[in-house]
Amino acid sequence: MRSDGRQQNQLRPVSIQTGVNKYAEGSVEISFGDTKVICTATVEERVPPFMKGQGKGWVTAEYSMLPRATQTRNQRESAKGKLGGRTMEIQRLIGRALRSVVDLQALGERTITLDCDVIQADGGTRTTSITGAFIAMAIAINKLSEKHNFSRYPITDYLASVSVGVINGTPLLDLNYEEDSSAKVDMNVVMTGAGQFVEVQGTGEESPFSRQELNDLLALAESGIGELINKQRDALGQAGARIGGAKA
Amino acid sequence: MRSDGRQQNQLRPVSIQTGVNKYAEGSVEISFGDTKVICTATVEERVPPFMKGQGKGWVTAEYSMLPRATQTRNQRESAKGKLGGRTMEIQRLIGRALRSVVDLQALGERTITLDCDVIQADGGTRTTSITGAFIAMAIAINKLSEKHNFSRYPITDYLASVSVGVINGTPLLDLNYEEDSSAKVDMNVVMTGAGQFVEVQGTGEESPFSRQELNDLLALAESGIGELINKQRDALGQAGARIGGAKA
Amino acid sequence: MRSDGRQQNQLRPVSIQTGVNKYAEGSVEISFGDTKVICTATVEERVPPFMKGQGKGWVTAEYSMLPRATQTRNQRESAKGKLGGRTMEIQRLIGRALRSVVDLQALGERTITLDCDVIQADGGTRTTSITGAFIAMAIAINKLSEKHNFSRYPITDYLASVSVGVINGTPLLDLNYEEDSSAKVDMNVVMTGAGQFVEVQGTGEESPFSRQELNDLLALAESGIGELINKQRDALGQAGARIGGAKA
Amino acid sequence: MRSDGRQQNQLRPVSIQTGVNKYAEGSVEISFGDTKVICTATVEERVPPFMKGQGKGWVTAEYSMLPRATQTRNQRESAKGKLGGRTMEIQRLIGRALRSVVDLQALGERTITLDCDVIQADGGTRTTSITGAFIAMAIAINKLSEKHNFSRYPITDYLASVSVGVINGTPLLDLNYEEDSSAKVDMNVVMTGAGQFVEVQGTGEESPFSRQELNDLLALAESGIGELINKQRDALGQAGARIGGAKA
Amino acid sequence: MRSDGRQQNQLRPVSIQTGVNKYAEGSVEISFGDTKVICTATVEERVPPFMKGQGKGWVTAEYSMLPRATQTRNQRESAKGKLGGRTMEIQRLIGRALRSVVDLQALGERTITLDCDVIQADGGTRTTSITGAFIAMAIAINKLSEKHNFSRYPITDYLASVSVGVINGTPLLDLNYEEDSSAKVDMNVVMTGAGQFVEVQGTGEESPFSRQELNDLLALAESGIGELINKQRDALGQAGARIGGAKA
Amino acid sequence: MRSDGRQQNQLRPVSIQTGVNKYAEGSVEISFGDTKVICTATVEERVPPFMKGQGKGWVTAEYSMLPRATQTRNQRESAKGKLGGRTMEIQRLIGRALRSVVDLQALGERTITLDCDVIQADGGTRTTSITGAFIAMAIAINKLSEKHNFSRYPITDYLASVSVGVINGTPLLDLNYEEDSSAKVDMNVVMTGAGQFVEVQGTGEESPFSRQELNDLLALAESGIGELINKQRDALGQAGARIGGAKA
Repeated sequence: MRSDGRQQNQLRPVSIQTGVNKYAEGSVEISFGDTKVICTATVEERVPPFMKGQGKGWVTAEYSMLPRATQTRNQRESAKGKLGGRTMEIQRLIGRALRSVVDLQALGERTITLDCDVIQADGGTRTTSITGAFIAMAIAINKLSEKHNFSRYPITDYLASVSVGVINGTPLLDLNYEEDSSAKVDMNVVMTGAGQFVEVQGTGEESPFSRQELNDLLALAESGIGELINKQRDALGQAGARIGGAKA
Repeated sequence: MRSDGRQQNQLRPVSIQTGVNKYAEGSVEISFGDTKVICTATVEERVPPFMKGQGKGWVTAEYSMLPRATQTRNQRESAKGKLGGRTMEIQRLIGRALRSVVDLQALGERTITLDCDVIQADGGTRTTSITGAFIAMAIAINKLSEKHNFSRYPITDYLASVSVGVINGTPLLDLNYEEDSSAKVDMNVVMTGAGQFVEVQGTGEESPFSRQELNDLLALAESGIGELINKQRDALGQAGARIGGAKA
Repeated sequence: MRSDGRQQNQLRPVSIQTGVNKYAEGSVEISFGDTKVICTATVEERVPPFMKGQGKGWVTAEYSMLPRATQTRNQRESAKGKLGGRTMEIQRLIGRALRSVVDLQALGERTITLDCDVIQADGGTRTTSITGAFIAMAIAINKLSEKHNFSRYPITDYLASVSVGVINGTPLLDLNYEEDSSAKVDMNVVMTGAGQFVEVQGTGEESPFSRQELNDLLALAESGIGELINKQRDALGQAGARIGGAKA
Repeated sequence: MRSDGRQQNQLRPVSIQTGVNKYAEGSVEISFGDTKVICTATVEERVPPFMKGQGKGWVTAEYSMLPRATQTRNQRESAKGKLGGRTMEIQRLIGRALRSVVDLQALGERTITLDCDVIQADGGTRTTSITGAFIAMAIAINKLSEKHNFSRYPITDYLASVSVGVINGTPLLDLNYEEDSSAKVDMNVVMTGAGQFVEVQGTGEESPFSRQELNDLLALAESGIGELINKQRDALGQAGARIGGAKA
Repeated sequence: MRSDGRQQNQLRPVSIQTGVNKYAEGSVEISFGDTKVICTATVEERVPPFMKGQGKGWVTAEYSMLPRATQTRNQRESAKGKLGGRTMEIQRLIGRALRSVVDLQALGERTITLDCDVIQADGGTRTTSITGAFIAMAIAINKLSEKHNFSRYPITDYLASVSVGVINGTPLLDLNYEEDSSAKVDMNVVMTGAGQFVEVQGTGEESPFSRQELNDLLALAESGIGELINKQRDALGQAGARIGGAKA
Repeated sequence: MRSDGRQQNQLRPVSIQTGVNKYAEGSVEISFGDTKVICTATVEERVPPFMKGQGKGWVTAEYSMLPRATQTRNQRESAKGKLGGRTMEIQRLIGRALRSVVDLQALGERTITLDCDVIQADGGTRTTSITGAFIAMAIAINKLSEKHNFSRYPITDYLASVSVGVINGTPLLDLNYEEDSSAKVDMNVVMTGAGQFVEVQGTGEESPFSRQELNDLLALAESGIGELINKQRDALGQAGARIGGAKA
């Protein structure tokens, strides 16, 4: 049994509260256990320079942690004057993952920026961010659809993410910080509602892993992501009705 | 009457929730109306280089806004690679104000860092931050006092802050964003529990102001800060009992 | 009596020399005692992006100290790669103060940049800068008025600034560095020729202050600023004749 | 058949030239087709601050491209004043991968820095860099071993990397730039001489991928990496003899 | 005799290999002894903002050293976040020198950027860079001339550079790193095919030098540059035929 | 005749005022015509890290221009966040030139920093800076010598600098801005009191120059520097008595 009493294939308690910001086009506060992230979606009627004139939209993400989201205080990246490699890696991952389920052509020449700000961190901040950012984005696009009557709905499927890892030879779902620190293999998986893979990032820094371990981890992730997508459906309700092609 | 129905000398609804962060030595989520700030206090057993060897402690603050705390999204200062002048000005003000009620000698060689992160902004983010940061600091120092048995209690008085301004010739208490934008005079006041001034910052960028207007604004601020300090007392309860010299 | 022999309500010797730069549209070297600042005004026939298309002008300021303006050498901010919080705070203050007496509509779509470079610092560099920058600006605008025949003169009033503080219970006017370092309350005041307040910035970092102290300090500042504005009038002579609405 | 005439499971021509730098403790110029990278290993008898006093060594990597390594010129990151997200992501990956086959305890308190500078880029710069950096590191550690007589040899296994992807439904090995640009799935795999996984990074930005596709890609990568490790063995010769535990 | 056996007026072995980069419009790998530099020329059909609308072209250069080009590893300027003074000085010199033999009017509104990347450094990196950059530029302009049929050929003369210095009272040609470190006078000279001076930069940091020493050094440089220009002619062959005015 | 009526070999009026800063160990305001520079010397009883433990001192320089020192306003390098190449090149030159006449061993483990701030620029700011910085340094070292009784006097000779150039085929001494802009050859020369060369930096960006032109320019520079050193002797008076070995 795990230190917090969970089964090997059990998610931490998930809480999702939408509409937490009065200005953002979409917003959510999402928790996986003690990891808590505020995700806001901002819609702007323009695209970045490298996308101009293609008739397509853009989806991008930024990620940050409050200085005391963690056990000891981290210096702000704004005070350091630059983004760290970890931050860049994570925000590139979030943006890439979300774009995999957005039809940029259908979205039209607008940009959706997902800001994922980690209020408290206890492992899995990137998977929590992706899962929450999808919800904020879905709310914003649903709101857009009320004004713009898209011919194709711009979101092609649900999308969520979870971490998995191997500790003492056992594959575990949704690692908290303590587990993450002692895992010999650490993997983040992003999947769609249809059960396809979008990102598979497995790292055996402490020790390489076998094909069998990889298979076990992917199976665990698949089941966890299925549960998370059900929670997203509940949270979105009617705002998620047209995702993946429901007719207008 | 004001757009949100308040009297001229009426604060916005104030909400204070302590203990919102499981790692920080002190934490609070504070709202003045729709302005919401998370303040955490971090205690470290060392002082910055310029304070070394003096047997004294240090109190400092950092301030930031989430990108979508405001009506339109602001670029992150971490992405810009530098802190803006407004941010620096505000965090210098918060730190200076808090230090005015801390006996740094009594605190001993440790640093308390107050992080004020604005989750949503609707005017008065600096006054909300000061008022909340005081609470987070008081909790952290109370916790310290349980371990260190200070001979003098390091906090000498309560401290809170409010904004005041003149709109259409009328002095108003605790401006929201809309009011702030149309004020001809804008003043931030920080005061102690004993009713002394710590900071008075009045600006008549749009139009200069008279001595009479200044007097009226200070009176309004004084009454508002009195109310805020009562709310701080309630929120702190026993954790605030020794502030201002209660015997050990 | 003060260490330099001054009365409590006495300014340091003020010297003002205009036309010290052969390129700038307006320039002055101004001293308050041993504090010496060169102020130049640059006029450009364009406005910053955020002001475009409003038919209005802009006034802004930059402030810097030579590395050895002070007792010990300070590292250049250009070598550090960023502006410090103190610099930003001061240059924002100078710009804001000057704008309070400029009719930006009357100025038309042009920018006036005031560069305040402190050659030697002995307390009061920001008040000296504001007082000098006003002169440099007035010269530049007078020169502009010879070419552009403004229908309304763009400067609505004189403007000057002085510091006041409390030392050993006594309110003092125009603190030098030594006095400033030992003041328990420190206040910078900016006022117009008509005796209105533009900025009141009082700080009791070392110890809070009472309403009575505030009143005494404001009275001192008012008298000092009156004297300074007389010196500005003398220095500007005919170039100041139309300030505040003298008919064309 | 592929545009350059290769079979689906065929590597590009690999060339490895060691000893290309007269100062570095280990160096190699490695090419996968038209992708050419210079890798140097620098040994320093100290560890970074966060590793001090643990009796362990450290292995880290830096990655850069010459401005004209690519079809159009890229601005230098030194001129931009910061490292891009892609660079950080890649250099973190290279360092992490190499550490997975280094016994940091056995290495002792020294740092090995691998510099991977891309002279010409035609797809697969990160996999080429990892494969070359391993060789440069192995040469440097072999040289160290002549002086230090390690009780355990610090390199526990060979390590190489290759990219795989799906184009028009076909899984392909070792993509060049043109193939990489049109792949719907793109995966980088790092494996050890024993056939274990160290990193699996698969991305379906353009379109999600199935479990079957993932399996096919991993099989392709496995065979390619086997071939690459044989080439590493040839290039290292005697310098690689003790890798993975050969007795001293 | 010199430590590497050369005569006082003898160049190190020079090697020049053109066409080393498959993308660049011109490229060369050039060595002066153990100093090795890759120079690429990039042609872009636009000019920098300050040159716009003048009907003229621009030639500019960038210079960098790989971190382990030197005996001990240097931190990357991209990681430091800024270019050092030495780098800036050298790249300004390279650009200025090349422009002295380019007819910018004849070149037309295009920019040629020379990237000089030092792969290995053993003294004379700036002179090697200038000599190599000229070749890369000449190749690129010759290629341009095949498409654009310039009425005047844009390169007016050959150009090369060499270092000279005084060691133990003896003037020496083409110093290697060891010699450079012990020279009391150090001079870099750039000359044209016609034997005119383009840059003379002599420094007696360790000790001032006389007019006679200056004369001796210039004579040495002149002979060395003559040899280098012969090698450039050989390397360019037909691609250099029109330099200096050969008729179209 | 020149536009300002000077002879070909005539310096602009030189003015030197010492003791212009009440804090600096040495200070001077120096003008060459309309070019005006404030130079201060700061003495610190420590050396930079790379000089530690050698028993030797260090001399370094920094250079900056006020934003409106020039005809049009330049952005501050502190606001840009980095030093430009020109600034770095000039401050490296000033430091190197001064060190050539300082016996760092005799100076002992202390640093002298020369700050050269250009108040107004009309050509020749680097030569004016070197000539003035020498005076500020000499005053500071003379003051040091009163306390430290150096066994060898640390300054070995006088040092000054002037620019020369060729305009319309005529060599001219001490170019102003207008002349500098139209010169085909531009040379800065630094020499000692003994008439030895310390720096010769000649540039023929617009057009290469002959050996004869070089000789003519050096002769002109030599005579100008002789005059400047006489003015330095006058300005220093007794403070310069021990330069170059006068017995203690």
